[in-house]
Amino acid sequence: MSGDSTIRAVRLTPVAFAEPPLRNSAGVHGPAVSRLVIEVETAGGAVGLGETFGDPAVLAAAREAAQRLPGVDVFDLAGLGRVVGVDPLVDGQPDITGPAEVREPGTFAGTTRVKAYSAFEVAFLDAQGRLLGRPVHQLLGGRVRAEVEFCGYLFFKFGAHPGAPVDDWGEVLDPAAMVGLARRFADEYGFGALKVKGGVLEPDAEVETLRLLAAEFPGVALRIDPNAAWTVPTSIRVAESAAGLLEYLEDPTAGLTGMAEVAAATPTPLATNMVVTSFRQIRRCVELGSAGIVLADHHFWGGLRATQQLGAVAASLGLRLSMHSNSHLGISLAAMVQAAAVLPGLDYSCDTHYPWTVEDVVDVAGAPVIKDGRVTVGDAPGLGVTLDRDALARMHERWRRGGEQARDDVAAMRRHVPGWVDRRPRW
Amino acid sequence: MSGDSTIRAVRLTPVAFAEPPLRNSAGVHGPAVSRLVIEVETAGGAVGLGETFGDPAVLAAAREAAQRLPGVDVFDLAGLGRVVGVDPLVDGQPDITGPAEVREPGTFAGTTRVKAYSAFEVAFLDAQGRLLGRPVHQLLGGRVRAEVEFCGYLFFKFGAHPGAPVDDWGEVLDPAAMVGLARRFADEYGFGALKVKGGVLEPDAEVETLRLLAAEFPGVALRIDPNAAWTVPTSIRVAESAAGLLEYLEDPTAGLTGMAEVAAATPTPLATNMVVTSFRQIRRCVELGSAGIVLADHHFWGGLRATQQLGAVAASLGLRLSMHSNSHLGISLAAMVQAAAVLPGLDYSCDTHYPWTVEDVVDVAGAPVIKDGRVTVGDAPGLGVTLDRDALARMHERWRRGGEQARDDVAAMRRHVPGWVDRRPRW
Repeated sequence: MSGDSTIRAVRLTPVAFAEPPLRNSAGVHGPAVSRLVIEVETAGGAVGLGETFGDPAVLAAAREAAQRLPGVDVFDLAGLGRVVGVDPLVDGQPDITGPAEVREPGTFAGTTRVKAYSAFEVAFLDAQGRLLGRPVHQLLGGRVRAEVEFCGYLFFKFGAHPGAPVDDWGEVLDPAAMVGLARRFADEYGFGALKVKGGVLEPDAEVETLRLLAAEFPGVALRIDPNAAWTVPTSIRVAESAAGLLEYLEDPTAGLTGMAEVAAATPTPLATNMVVTSFRQIRRCVELGSAGIVLADHHFWGGLRATQQLGAVAASLGLRLSMHSNSHLGISLAAMVQAAAVLPGLDYSCDTHYPWTVEDVVDVAGAPVIKDGRVTVGDAPGLGVTLDRDALARMHERWRRGGEQARDDVAAMRRHVPGWVDRRPRW
Repeated sequence: MSGDSTIRAVRLTPVAFAEPPLRNSAGVHGPAVSRLVIEVETAGGAVGLGETFGDPAVLAAAREAAQRLPGVDVFDLAGLGRVVGVDPLVDGQPDITGPAEVREPGTFAGTTRVKAYSAFEVAFLDAQGRLLGRPVHQLLGGRVRAEVEFCGYLFFKFGAHPGAPVDDWGEVLDPAAMVGLARRFADEYGFGALKVKGGVLEPDAEVETLRLLAAEFPGVALRIDPNAAWTVPTSIRVAESAAGLLEYLEDPTAGLTGMAEVAAATPTPLATNMVVTSFRQIRRCVELGSAGIVLADHHFWGGLRATQQLGAVAASLGLRLSMHSNSHLGISLAAMVQAAAVLPGLDYSCDTHYPWTVEDVVDVAGAPVIKDGRVTVGDAPGLGVTLDRDALARMHERWRRGGEQARDDVAAMRRHVPGWVDRRPRW
């Protein structure tokens, strides 16, 4: 490996991995999650890894960029922005002021290029670190914490995908079963915080779930995220019922104005990953008082450096930060750890779907491990993870058999509940 | 030079350099400017340079930090923050809402540590670049421009310091003389923008100066900065008289509320380097509408990375950016060029006092050169400048003879005009 940092090859490998039928307010996760694994190889032989959404739109943007990246220097992130055609500070999700636009942030076309850019940015930084023999956090100004705390991400779930045998986790569709799931998470990972993906049971049953969790896990911080399943009055009523149980309430209702109404009516802090996922949305959120906590996510916000910049914006405006997760593999987990390691204003433990990820493209040796609810921030070069080529080939083959498809939790839900409609607010 | 990036030595060299008697609304520049030159040397032999204010308070903070820096890694900027005891996102100048607190931003105690931190941060980044053989802009994500535009910084001035012979520039104390000065600046440096340090002549005479400059230099952008010398009504009246002449009006009056009153009354954009020089001040400025343009200055804001973060905040909030300057040497100019090179949202050319700097600590070979109003962003490792040790020794000796002293434009003015009082607003 020499010091030549010019890109000579980019490899894009879409993969699919199995996931249980996790419920949310839109529907349910299907049997396979698509992700894109990016390898950026320099003329000197350093390889940087990145991971992002495997949706067709993101794949198309990444493929277009990959054609034009050879010859670009991995230290030239501004050049990467020009190639991908994106400026994370300017592009992204549009304003979501009213309640009419209830959609998952990942579905806005404006976010596609940012999500492609973000993964290349991580790969560029990983390649830089490998070239220099330094961990990514050193290239970002140095870590402010030696360990990153993660939160146990609890989902109500069906016992099995349609036609498949009951999975190892079994059915979790009532408060008591959720406590059992939480016990497994707590025993295996030692999480100091638990998040319930809500908007699935009747609101009162979800509040009951929180009560049982609080009783079972004293001292463990709780949060719930119904993904805008509730009206403003329901959100306020739930906030009152759950008073004192929650460290924060995430996206109870849709839109900046709806969130602002809820925020004004409850002392419980509101968090969002739906109405604020790009820089240009922040000002209106602050003006309206829609949420005091914004969820970082380097995939949405434009990479690890953009996440640091979000930290600066949050510090300037008095916003607090937590971290969001989608279903992901070990490359993204490693990147999330680096981002969290250098974010001084990260006030809460980070979400992660990783306990639900039963197979991975990264080599077990060097893969991040969650212990006592934490991942140690290592000093291995770059992100510190390497590819397991056999696993990558196997998971790519599964993706190839499934074909390119966008995530569709509603369609997946219709295979469990015929005629299911994504109706939000539902309560 | 090996790759060991641990600091083994820190050298602080206060220097003094000569400057003409430049006028401003507070008084006049004295015959000598104090600056602090910082050298950070790694165990591997790489030396990084930084430059900051030479005021006793900053010297004290830098000396205290220098004692504790050996053993810190130059890639650990978070560790630097801990050593200096500062977080640029949180610390700095306090809120200046009302008009009572008319003071130069440099004089607030809260800014002292930030100003020390900033210079060390530049030295750390310079050392990183030297270790890696890469320009600083590559360590900051890559340049977004190949050239940085600067603005000719025009001062009314006395012909000489007390007791000294008339200097090369002569007296500039009326509009016609200012046009003559601007002609010299334009011929020598090719500036595409000119800034008048105002608050010196009667406001009408300063407007007349702008008119003459506009007539003499068609197409050249003009700005004026009276450093809060004017009342709100005077500011509004000047803005009306100068309608169409100015790209922006900088700090016409004191305080966020005063600025907001002026901003509401004129279409001319307002800029500030007095009421917003730290992150925690931005929100109130936006809420009040006090200024649409914030002046970056890595010395005030916490270094080159903090300047990038300011860029993110500005982009998020719809603020525009220009760049401020104090009297400085070539190390700071090189750092300003790197900061501007990586700042996408820099909408205006940068201020610089450099044409007034007649001697320098940096070697002429490799020193930034202003040509056609621009400095080329080079690819030399680090900042690209090296010390002229003879000049450094000579300028340190001059500083030693003068002794530690804070900048005091009022005291300097009293040696020209006995009984002078810094009275703002004056008009």
